[in-house]
Amino acid sequence: MKILAFGEVMMRMMPSNYKTLSQTNTLEFLFTGTGINVLSGLYQMGHQVYIVTKLPDNNVGKAASAEIRKLGIHDCYICYGGNHIGIYFLEQGIGNRASQVTYLNRKDSSFCLSQISDYDFSCLDGMDALHICGISLAVNENLRQITYKFIEEAKKRHVKIIFDCNYRPSLWAHQSFCAKEIYENVLKQADIVFAGLKDATLLLNKKIDSSLSHIEQIKEACRQMSHDYQIETIFGTIRNTQNHISTLNGYMYNSNQFLMSPSYELTIYDRIGAGDGFAAGAIHGYFSNMDPHLLIQYATVSGLLAHTTYGDSPIIGEDTILDFIKNGCVLLKR
Amino acid sequence: MKILAFGEVMMRMMPSNYKTLSQTNTLEFLFTGTGINVLSGLYQMGHQVYIVTKLPDNNVGKAASAEIRKLGIHDCYICYGGNHIGIYFLEQGIGNRASQVTYLNRKDSSFCLSQISDYDFSCLDGMDALHICGISLAVNENLRQITYKFIEEAKKRHVKIIFDCNYRPSLWAHQSFCAKEIYENVLKQADIVFAGLKDATLLLNKKIDSSLSHIEQIKEACRQMSHDYQIETIFGTIRNTQNHISTLNGYMYNSNQFLMSPSYELTIYDRIGAGDGFAAGAIHGYFSNMDPHLLIQYATVSGLLAHTTYGDSPIIGEDTILDFIKNGCVLLKR
Amino acid sequence: MKILAFGEVMMRMMPSNYKTLSQTNTLEFLFTGTGINVLSGLYQMGHQVYIVTKLPDNNVGKAASAEIRKLGIHDCYICYGGNHIGIYFLEQGIGNRASQVTYLNRKDSSFCLSQISDYDFSCLDGMDALHICGISLAVNENLRQITYKFIEEAKKRHVKIIFDCNYRPSLWAHQSFCAKEIYENVLKQADIVFAGLKDATLLLNKKIDSSLSHIEQIKEACRQMSHDYQIETIFGTIRNTQNHISTLNGYMYNSNQFLMSPSYELTIYDRIGAGDGFAAGAIHGYFSNMDPHLLIQYATVSGLLAHTTYGDSPIIGEDTILDFIKNGCVLLKR
Amino acid sequence: MKILAFGEVMMRMMPSNYKTLSQTNTLEFLFTGTGINVLSGLYQMGHQVYIVTKLPDNNVGKAASAEIRKLGIHDCYICYGGNHIGIYFLEQGIGNRASQVTYLNRKDSSFCLSQISDYDFSCLDGMDALHICGISLAVNENLRQITYKFIEEAKKRHVKIIFDCNYRPSLWAHQSFCAKEIYENVLKQADIVFAGLKDATLLLNKKIDSSLSHIEQIKEACRQMSHDYQIETIFGTIRNTQNHISTLNGYMYNSNQFLMSPSYELTIYDRIGAGDGFAAGAIHGYFSNMDPHLLIQYATVSGLLAHTTYGDSPIIGEDTILDFIKNGCVLLKR
Amino acid sequence: MKILAFGEVMMRMMPSNYKTLSQTNTLEFLFTGTGINVLSGLYQMGHQVYIVTKLPDNNVGKAASAEIRKLGIHDCYICYGGNHIGIYFLEQGIGNRASQVTYLNRKDSSFCLSQISDYDFSCLDGMDALHICGISLAVNENLRQITYKFIEEAKKRHVKIIFDCNYRPSLWAHQSFCAKEIYENVLKQADIVFAGLKDATLLLNKKIDSSLSHIEQIKEACRQMSHDYQIETIFGTIRNTQNHISTLNGYMYNSNQFLMSPSYELTIYDRIGAGDGFAAGAIHGYFSNMDPHLLIQYATVSGLLAHTTYGDSPIIGEDTILDFIKNGCVLLKR
Amino acid sequence: MKILAFGEVMMRMMPSNYKTLSQTNTLEFLFTGTGINVLSGLYQMGHQVYIVTKLPDNNVGKAASAEIRKLGIHDCYICYGGNHIGIYFLEQGIGNRASQVTYLNRKDSSFCLSQISDYDFSCLDGMDALHICGISLAVNENLRQITYKFIEEAKKRHVKIIFDCNYRPSLWAHQSFCAKEIYENVLKQADIVFAGLKDATLLLNKKIDSSLSHIEQIKEACRQMSHDYQIETIFGTIRNTQNHISTLNGYMYNSNQFLMSPSYELTIYDRIGAGDGFAAGAIHGYFSNMDPHLLIQYATVSGLLAHTTYGDSPIIGEDTILDFIKNGCVLLKR
Repeated sequence: MKILAFGEVMMRMMPSNYKTLSQTNTLEFLFTGTGINVLSGLYQMGHQVYIVTKLPDNNVGKAASAEIRKLGIHDCYICYGGNHIGIYFLEQGIGNRASQVTYLNRKDSSFCLSQISDYDFSCLDGMDALHICGISLAVNENLRQITYKFIEEAKKRHVKIIFDCNYRPSLWAHQSFCAKEIYENVLKQADIVFAGLKDATLLLNKKIDSSLSHIEQIKEACRQMSHDYQIETIFGTIRNTQNHISTLNGYMYNSNQFLMSPSYELTIYDRIGAGDGFAAGAIHGYFSNMDPHLLIQYATVSGLLAHTTYGDSPIIGEDTILDFIKNGCVLLKR
Repeated sequence: MKILAFGEVMMRMMPSNYKTLSQTNTLEFLFTGTGINVLSGLYQMGHQVYIVTKLPDNNVGKAASAEIRKLGIHDCYICYGGNHIGIYFLEQGIGNRASQVTYLNRKDSSFCLSQISDYDFSCLDGMDALHICGISLAVNENLRQITYKFIEEAKKRHVKIIFDCNYRPSLWAHQSFCAKEIYENVLKQADIVFAGLKDATLLLNKKIDSSLSHIEQIKEACRQMSHDYQIETIFGTIRNTQNHISTLNGYMYNSNQFLMSPSYELTIYDRIGAGDGFAAGAIHGYFSNMDPHLLIQYATVSGLLAHTTYGDSPIIGEDTILDFIKNGCVLLKR
Repeated sequence: MKILAFGEVMMRMMPSNYKTLSQTNTLEFLFTGTGINVLSGLYQMGHQVYIVTKLPDNNVGKAASAEIRKLGIHDCYICYGGNHIGIYFLEQGIGNRASQVTYLNRKDSSFCLSQISDYDFSCLDGMDALHICGISLAVNENLRQITYKFIEEAKKRHVKIIFDCNYRPSLWAHQSFCAKEIYENVLKQADIVFAGLKDATLLLNKKIDSSLSHIEQIKEACRQMSHDYQIETIFGTIRNTQNHISTLNGYMYNSNQFLMSPSYELTIYDRIGAGDGFAAGAIHGYFSNMDPHLLIQYATVSGLLAHTTYGDSPIIGEDTILDFIKNGCVLLKR
Repeated sequence: MKILAFGEVMMRMMPSNYKTLSQTNTLEFLFTGTGINVLSGLYQMGHQVYIVTKLPDNNVGKAASAEIRKLGIHDCYICYGGNHIGIYFLEQGIGNRASQVTYLNRKDSSFCLSQISDYDFSCLDGMDALHICGISLAVNENLRQITYKFIEEAKKRHVKIIFDCNYRPSLWAHQSFCAKEIYENVLKQADIVFAGLKDATLLLNKKIDSSLSHIEQIKEACRQMSHDYQIETIFGTIRNTQNHISTLNGYMYNSNQFLMSPSYELTIYDRIGAGDGFAAGAIHGYFSNMDPHLLIQYATVSGLLAHTTYGDSPIIGEDTILDFIKNGCVLLKR
Repeated sequence: MKILAFGEVMMRMMPSNYKTLSQTNTLEFLFTGTGINVLSGLYQMGHQVYIVTKLPDNNVGKAASAEIRKLGIHDCYICYGGNHIGIYFLEQGIGNRASQVTYLNRKDSSFCLSQISDYDFSCLDGMDALHICGISLAVNENLRQITYKFIEEAKKRHVKIIFDCNYRPSLWAHQSFCAKEIYENVLKQADIVFAGLKDATLLLNKKIDSSLSHIEQIKEACRQMSHDYQIETIFGTIRNTQNHISTLNGYMYNSNQFLMSPSYELTIYDRIGAGDGFAAGAIHGYFSNMDPHLLIQYATVSGLLAHTTYGDSPIIGEDTILDFIKNGCVLLKR
Repeated sequence: MKILAFGEVMMRMMPSNYKTLSQTNTLEFLFTGTGINVLSGLYQMGHQVYIVTKLPDNNVGKAASAEIRKLGIHDCYICYGGNHIGIYFLEQGIGNRASQVTYLNRKDSSFCLSQISDYDFSCLDGMDALHICGISLAVNENLRQITYKFIEEAKKRHVKIIFDCNYRPSLWAHQSFCAKEIYENVLKQADIVFAGLKDATLLLNKKIDSSLSHIEQIKEACRQMSHDYQIETIFGTIRNTQNHISTLNGYMYNSNQFLMSPSYELTIYDRIGAGDGFAAGAIHGYFSNMDPHLLIQYATVSGLLAHTTYGDSPIIGEDTILDFIKNGCVLLKR
């Protein structure tokens, strides 16, 4: 399949060996963003993937493109201009200590200041799907309009819309009154949606009977969202932590059917990126017409294994995921 | 508060990635010592902190001062002379393998050979507290006299005396006969003392009924020490390990009241420095007049989190500790 | 004791920090092979150890010799020629993700193409034992003949034969029909053998009653192998994994007696090399006439701790192992 | 002497080993800025130095303060707020290849957006000198007013004004019409000024007879600037390059006297920071009442050696500079 | 332009900081080969570039592809199979010490053992040029036939043939008798050829009057090669070294015209890859119809600057080269 | 030949990339000393080499032995005890900035405190030469007596005495009155001596006519030393520096014949160790009976190339040196 993502590319900078910024003079960097993360996973699973974004017109932008190509993503639809890119510092925690993310100026990046005229929507020609992330809706009105335009142009071409809600209340602080409406505009257009219980209740104001079990509440949230916005398929994950042991479950709601994966014990090397790993697995399963029970298991293991690799971008291929489903955790493969 | 510590500064050198000295040609180094470790923690919690010590008069001494300043500690009372600093190599263990500490010559360091005339006791003017470590008592008679002099001068100025017993039998090997008396000299002057059951029984020869529960024994040890030496407040920690899971508790004895923190599960990244993290938390709690129940919890979490950061010097601030007390272990903060 | 090993030396290359080959531009390398690994462990335990092998006649071969000397192994019997050495890339897994080994061309290495005339068998003069690895039997007919010749020459000199089956079906893919006969040729000459249940059933076609408990099956396998090939002592290990917790046991079969070590919980830093750590411990225990119950415990702990050190070559000495047997897992030793 | 600098602190990020951004995933970072660079050099020469600036109120700001303290600069007058810091990437060139500097968003940094109410001008109490950099004049009107205010408050307290022109035409692109006037406002208040021929001709529109030798032109430029703005002392440097060999000269204009240092051959390890090294040397020489001939030699060698150390901040002390003046270049000192 | 290269991809491994293999346990690696090096340079100059080769079907092959994409080269025509890749170790020399290259097994790589059926010659459709390297002719008869086939298929499609002689006598040791004939077969088909005086005399047996000046000899060699094989354009470089100073000149022979660039002083950071930098510059100049005098200058500076960047693959763009031609060597660009 | 060296082993610690101690938290370390440096060079040239010294009985001592073995030196005559080793920090200079060496406590190292009873002089059995360094004479009376004893025992066994004066005035500061006599004691026993003009004049009080040319003075110094102490062969080097270009010459005085090598231009990567490289070359040439003109050239190039490799220990073999003598400086060898 040919899949295009529209979204921000940021730079992540991290001290190594769990040091804090004050303890080091060296940073490991990589480029990240929901769009390129999901595409990176899809490339590993055999798809042709394209990012459309705006990068600074300098050596930082060039380095970003080079890394994007290395991940297997076509860079031919990237435009260049301006001089800024969003940066976040990640001070990795371990055990009882939380990982700490510190953002520098993000709102004035080349991407966030990009104009509708920067993009050539013919890039959607021949695509099978367009991936959109909720963060593009939050930044500013202009970027919102560009996002709408991408959706409109995709619809014209019968390209499927994949929408990852990725609702971050802090990004909506000054405009929370309009978040629901904006999200609903997009949800009504979307075919595949990544959403959870909090999106339904906090963002979309769905009424869910809190006396129900947690899973029944999720199921009900999916039912309402699917019904209200006519969404074909909804995906999401559930994490549980007890006595320092965490587990991951994935779920899928489709045609009134709610399916859950088995529960997997999490082992975490990199605390960021599992959601995008799950999404890549789900989209791949969806487009390769996997059996639904396998599909949700496949997506969940894809997320599970994304926690065991360096970086935000999933790099695990189909073979490894199917092998894990079949044989579980193995120490060494020769 | 303004807190001054008198104590040794050493250099710690460590192969990275759990290698042994024979497996590497690279070492990570830092400067350490009970004094600067406790001060480092107190700086993070908002205090003005000063170290008084002697460093070699060469580029190693200068590098030590620079790192000390970086930790937030004023270096204006450091004196320089001689050419040696104590060094220890740390070969980090993992899992079943113990970390191994190897000391080079320590007794001929600039600090251990320092003279009373090296120090200007007016540095105590305006201080709220003086921190003393038991290791300064162990090294040689001369350093002992300097320590006594610091205590005497502090008392003159109504500066509180904080004393960390830090009793290491190996350092007293050739003079064990006089350890008890020397420690008692100091304990009688001290306001705040860090001590445990072994200090009471092995060092100070207190008789504790061994049929009591472990905690009752500790309580009784505190009672006797507090009574015999007129110590205002005694702090200490208890570790338990069962089935590869370790827990940490802190306790405080004050005005005949014995308080214990809840039991926290330890997650260890750096196996050194938790005691100094606990001490920093306890001293901060004490001087900021925290509620005693919160105080002992705060100190214990400060020690707990010191095990999750690189290096011997605690670098965790008050916000993070209070947040942990409130919300427990969190994976990621944005 | 003086112990000689005949075997291949390979180069292992590994990205650091659990990265994959595509995520890094830096590799840590070391030299490895069953022979030098076992000898490395034996050197730490006080033996004089020698490797006989063929290395490329270039700077890679020289670097290999230098590392071998560093491990404490005499390099005087190494011969040089050709230009190739077997290389494997190790992409370290963590948690749910398996470590992945990728071999480059191995069959055309200087060692695998070596000729009988490359070796001077007088190197066996004065040795107490010769260590042989099953991999040398698998490579090609020529190397097999060299192995036979080493055994024959050792027998002439009353040098004990230690044989590690190390049966890897993939290496026998094109010649599986003759594997049993070839192994039996060697087993009949061997005094000390490292073998497990699968060697007995899959390779040597022993019939074992599968209704027996797993341990009874192993015992029966040892009994048959010992009887059929007149092997003095057989060693092996058993791993169990349940709920992400793994344990290790060692066993020894000697004079109709089957002994098992206690069960130890595994903590794994480097997923390769525990077998060779066990072997070094077993051989040392055997030649130093340890009490059999201590011997099998010693060998097992030697394997256990090999999982906690960097690299394939065990580097743990006798003191550390005995200390672990006595005191169990300790965090820090000063 | 006590010297305060008001100026921006930026983050410099650099791939190691002359790689480009596209060739690496690792960056070495440090904190830099004309102010802290000059202060760093002055600290090495024995002065008490203070920076006044605004840093982001997050872990990046804290890391900056820690590094600033490590350089020997008091951080007590730094204020915190906002979330951004200027960043520049330095891709080091070598030989025929130029080093390339790439700026990210600088104008929205906490410093550039700081308000006059962020600063407490009592920090000038007791200072001997205030250091101001021309870049603070270029950023925006608000920062310009803050700079004026610092100068005004300094004047009130009889604090000497040191002004480094640091004229960068690119920063004045949209406001070049007013640059001259703004600079003249400051020059009229300044006691010590760092300026060169281009500042006089391109920025200040001085008419210099181009038929004069290069040195005579510089002398004339100094004469006019000194006369027109009543500047006590003007410092500057001259670089010459012929056949890949570069030399450095320093000059000083004071009381109608123009002095030049000898010409030194440059050896460059870090291509940034020599100007600030020269300035530190000149200011130290000025305030320690060095003989003028020694002073200009001292300042020039301070700049010369700043090119041989890592980073923008000079770290060479008085002993080393005087030693170089006396003995020239030496390979090794024991 | 669209340019396809057929050629080997190797792995280069290098200790950092001028260490030898015996002095380090860490290697920096990259992927290299005349084909991808030339294409890397051409990508920087704005062309669409494609490599056709065979890589091992494992994680090493995947990592190679990822790096190739990062260089800007399309990997869609790479085929995968086998398990080996050629490796060379580079121990960097410095000053008086030569860099040392050590090859491991190269002849059994996936590429060298590839079959004609591995390649789909339709990849030549739409290409403007095919790049061939003399090394592909040297390896074995099979690879020679594949090379011929690529040339034949290119000719059918009117794709220009670029041929880099790259004659290495050591690779022809066992077949030197046929080298001339094989090279002549290809030269007769080639449009653009990279060749030098030694190729003409030692390989092609041209008779050149040795009493002529060096440059006249080169001119005569070009004349004869151009005439005998009907080559449109011949490019090459000349190096001179005197008193530790080296210079580089480029030349071009086209339509009986011999042009030489000015002589540039070399500054060398990486001692490998200048030839490929020159070739990329020459091919770009040729296809963009540069003025011949500029063209040969451009190509030479492209080679000159390739010596100042890490790695074998040129990464310098057109702007930088033209800037160097105009302004010469500059220390710092902001 | 079999060569034994008696001497100190120290640890050298160095920040990488020309940083100072205050600029880094990482150190590269190695083990060094005149003895092991000379032996390292001799191993590369084909000799069997042994060090006799005392190392600390801890993991630092073990790591030293491992590195010594890696250099090709037999460690069987090393004894272990005590806990200290001499350490020096090397802050590498570059260009105009000098490298700075800082020693920590050296006099209390296991070696410097070693006793005559620590050594078994039968290690001299079968040796061809004993290497002694002047530093062993300087440390303390006890070590001096051990050195005399080694010389006496060597003489008994007709082992040649090689003596490197290595006169460092700072080490003789408190005992300069007896330096001459002590050195003369040893010089009278020595067969091969490394000495220069300053040793003759400042240490041994030879009267040399200062109106002679520098070379004539050296010749005369050699003549007198050879005559007065009956030394068979004297070796030394001369450095000249003009306009930042340094040259190296070696000389040899033997049987009244004074020979000088050509003058070689120095290129320096590591500023330490060239003297030991020269010594290794000279000793090898001497024992392999090289033609004297070749010998002194060989020794000088060995010293020259030692400046181009990392570390104090020479690692250049005979082939490379002869190749340099024949072909001069070459960029790249394949």
